[in-house]
Amino acid sequence: MIYVASPDLTGNEKAYVNECMDSTWISSSGHFITDFERRFADACGVKHAIATNNGTTALHLALAVMGIGPGDEVIVPVLTYIATANAVRYCGAEPVFVDVESDTMNMDPAQVRLAITERTKAIIPVDLYGHPSDINAINAIADEHGIAVLADSAEAHGAEVDGRRVGSLAFATAFSFFGNKILTTGEGGAVTTDDDDFAARLRLLRGQGMDPTRRYWFPEVGFNYRMTNIAAAIGVAQLERFDDILDRRDQIAKQYDSLLAELPGVTLPAQRAGMRRVNWLYTVTLDGVSAEQRDTIIRALDGEGIETRPVFHPLHHLPPYAHTTSYPEAERLGATGISLPTHLGLTEADITTVADSLAAQLV
Amino acid sequence: MIYVASPDLTGNEKAYVNECMDSTWISSSGHFITDFERRFADACGVKHAIATNNGTTALHLALAVMGIGPGDEVIVPVLTYIATANAVRYCGAEPVFVDVESDTMNMDPAQVRLAITERTKAIIPVDLYGHPSDINAINAIADEHGIAVLADSAEAHGAEVDGRRVGSLAFATAFSFFGNKILTTGEGGAVTTDDDDFAARLRLLRGQGMDPTRRYWFPEVGFNYRMTNIAAAIGVAQLERFDDILDRRDQIAKQYDSLLAELPGVTLPAQRAGMRRVNWLYTVTLDGVSAEQRDTIIRALDGEGIETRPVFHPLHHLPPYAHTTSYPEAERLGATGISLPTHLGLTEADITTVADSLAAQLV
Ligand SMILES: Cc1ncc(COP(=O)(O)O)c(CN[C@H]2[C@H](O)[C@H](O)[C@@H](OP(=O)(O)OP(=O)(O)OC[C@H]3O[C@@H](n4cnc5c(=O)[nH]c(N)nc54)[C@H](O)[C@@H]3O)O[C@@H]2C)c1O
Ligand SMILES: Cc1ncc(COP(=O)(O)O)c(CN[C@H]2[C@H](O)[C@H](O)[C@@H](OP(=O)(O)OP(=O)(O)OC[C@H]3O[C@@H](n4cnc5c(=O)[nH]c(N)nc54)[C@H](O)[C@@H]3O)O[C@@H]2C)c1O
Repeated sequence: MIYVASPDLTGNEKAYVNECMDSTWISSSGHFITDFERRFADACGVKHAIATNNGTTALHLALAVMGIGPGDEVIVPVLTYIATANAVRYCGAEPVFVDVESDTMNMDPAQVRLAITERTKAIIPVDLYGHPSDINAINAIADEHGIAVLADSAEAHGAEVDGRRVGSLAFATAFSFFGNKILTTGEGGAVTTDDDDFAARLRLLRGQGMDPTRRYWFPEVGFNYRMTNIAAAIGVAQLERFDDILDRRDQIAKQYDSLLAELPGVTLPAQRAGMRRVNWLYTVTLDGVSAEQRDTIIRALDGEGIETRPVFHPLHHLPPYAHTTSYPEAERLGATGISLPTHLGLTEADITTVADSLAAQLV
Repeated sequence: MIYVASPDLTGNEKAYVNECMDSTWISSSGHFITDFERRFADACGVKHAIATNNGTTALHLALAVMGIGPGDEVIVPVLTYIATANAVRYCGAEPVFVDVESDTMNMDPAQVRLAITERTKAIIPVDLYGHPSDINAINAIADEHGIAVLADSAEAHGAEVDGRRVGSLAFATAFSFFGNKILTTGEGGAVTTDDDDFAARLRLLRGQGMDPTRRYWFPEVGFNYRMTNIAAAIGVAQLERFDDILDRRDQIAKQYDSLLAELPGVTLPAQRAGMRRVNWLYTVTLDGVSAEQRDTIIRALDGEGIETRPVFHPLHHLPPYAHTTSYPEAERLGATGISLPTHLGLTEADITTVADSLAAQLV
């Protein structure tokens, strides 16, 4: 089987996890947590990183600390993993959807401008499949209206805009470190921010809101969204090889590019000027196919031992967010997009196999 | 330092965690998760166990699947760790507090009866410090009114009523496997139930609500409350020694009993007939002391290298749940209770040291 994703644990991951086991610090106390937070913040070029138990809780924690609640609206791209919108619902607020750019698949700033109302409290751009959002445009709109930006960079560790990494570009940024991500901790997440007060409140509410100076005294309702020392130990080992991991993923993408460029009807991943795309899942669109045809191709590849993923269903098609507005770009991308295996365990031969199999499906 | 709690990882914990690392199954897929769920359900004598990433999320997941929402009331003991009440708030519902029994520190069924209104949707008895709640009385009241019981047995793995273990006694039961618990997975939790449909929905909503037959299709809003394979691996190793762990904790409690029984003004932990108390944290009350005096004793012991814990603040004293009703038993227990070190790493000499130091504080 050629998996669509697979963690690479060939560095110090195992050694560090064994340090946790030997020290018996396996819960959410231990030096790897603070090490991971420090190293990840440094890698992003941001002041604070607050580790959480996954990317969904990172999003929720950030919105909760922003004070998002019932009656509020939060602008979300209609093409994203459902967690982005669910985090808004957890707060009792409503996600307001906007269509995406046809090339990057990310939130279209022009649509964001149109979606702002008096109730808009935040905007969540999502860096889909590794391509950064047009954060400068989105920050500008947010500033005009006094709205906060929470970036969702779950899929884009290391991506850059104007030479600065995601995690440092919005007021706050949420990350996921699930087993299929560029950097993994098994399950895990983080929120980054330059704001000291915001960071302090993220830390407080992550740990049930307990007053750090008074045992079992809880000034407010918090959460148990803590990352474990074991997860953080894995993350530290991953961060030691961060640049190398990004480079190897770039090489995989380059090989796909050269194998697929000549195929008729295949649109390769976008790469905007001034931005560094990272290659989480190498994702192409199959121009002119229907969702059914794309799904048939996915099943055929699966039959040949090649695991792939469809691009996400636009959220307005899913029951919890169903409504009849049309979002043409998201609908097209959601129907025709396919993510190909992208991980460090792939050989050049594997990538050729994937490309050949896809090509055979398209004739 | 004599810690109040510490995980015992002297079985197969490390070997199983290394299996995860070697296999690269470190996220929330892998055989240890299903092994852990099967073994834990069997150990409780219940049909289903659904593992979660902690005890707080276990409570929330169970309440969410019960359909608890805005306008609903849930009856909670006023003396418990704050997570019990917070889980109700996460659903947008209101916890309604009742006082506890003076001996077991658990929800008083007579008070529960008085607290029921037309809006009551659930009751959450909590098995504090290892002593089971009067679940038969609470189930009877719930049945009369057609209300669901979700037990919170975070602190009472292995406790029994009429020879049957907690986890199998209520409609659903939530557990925590934090690093200080009788069984630990680092961070972790579970919900147990005999109800097939309820179990299926717990599983669905734990994993973001994704349709198991259709990738990225989400019929409803779920959560990322998944336990990792690594956490479950630790849990499986713990379960292999479950009976032994319970026995050794009983021995620690017996030694404390014999050392403290003669001390004037110390009330030992309760032990109701027909129930098996397990010894999570061995917790006594210091009769007639004020909260300030108890806290002074805690600081004095800490100065001698002995970590203890105060009993919880009654929830109506905490800002998020502040109100002026008086709950005399909870107030007395919250002010005078102290939990002593209780874990498998303690030697007989350690326990004597703790008892002697406490005795010295009381003269
Ligand atoms: C924009 C955005 N915002 C928020 C989030 C929420 O973050 P989080 O999942 O709460 O941390 C996310 C995260 N979305 C992910 C989620 O993490 C989600 O769980 C995942 O869905 P999936 O495609 O159904 O995931 P999977 O099938 O479980 O794993 C994908 C591949 O990775 C491999 N894999 C995962 N974990 C492991 C592991 O521990 N070991 C090995 N060997 N392989 C692993 C699987 O075998 C698959 O080949 O992919 C989604 C796109 C996001 O993308
Ligand atoms: C009735 C009830 N309902 C729900 C919950 C929620 O469950 P959960 O915490 O979300 O899983 C709980 C869980 N409540 C716990 C929580 O788990 C909470 O985090 C804990 O509070 P704490 O006393 O402030 O916890 P601590 O100081 O972090 O750890 C207690 C001792 O255990 C040791 N310890 C914890 N983890 C580790 C570890 O990984 N290694 C070692 N060596 N020691 C550890 C610490 O050093 C301390 O000595 O104790 C509370 C009573 C509950 O009791």
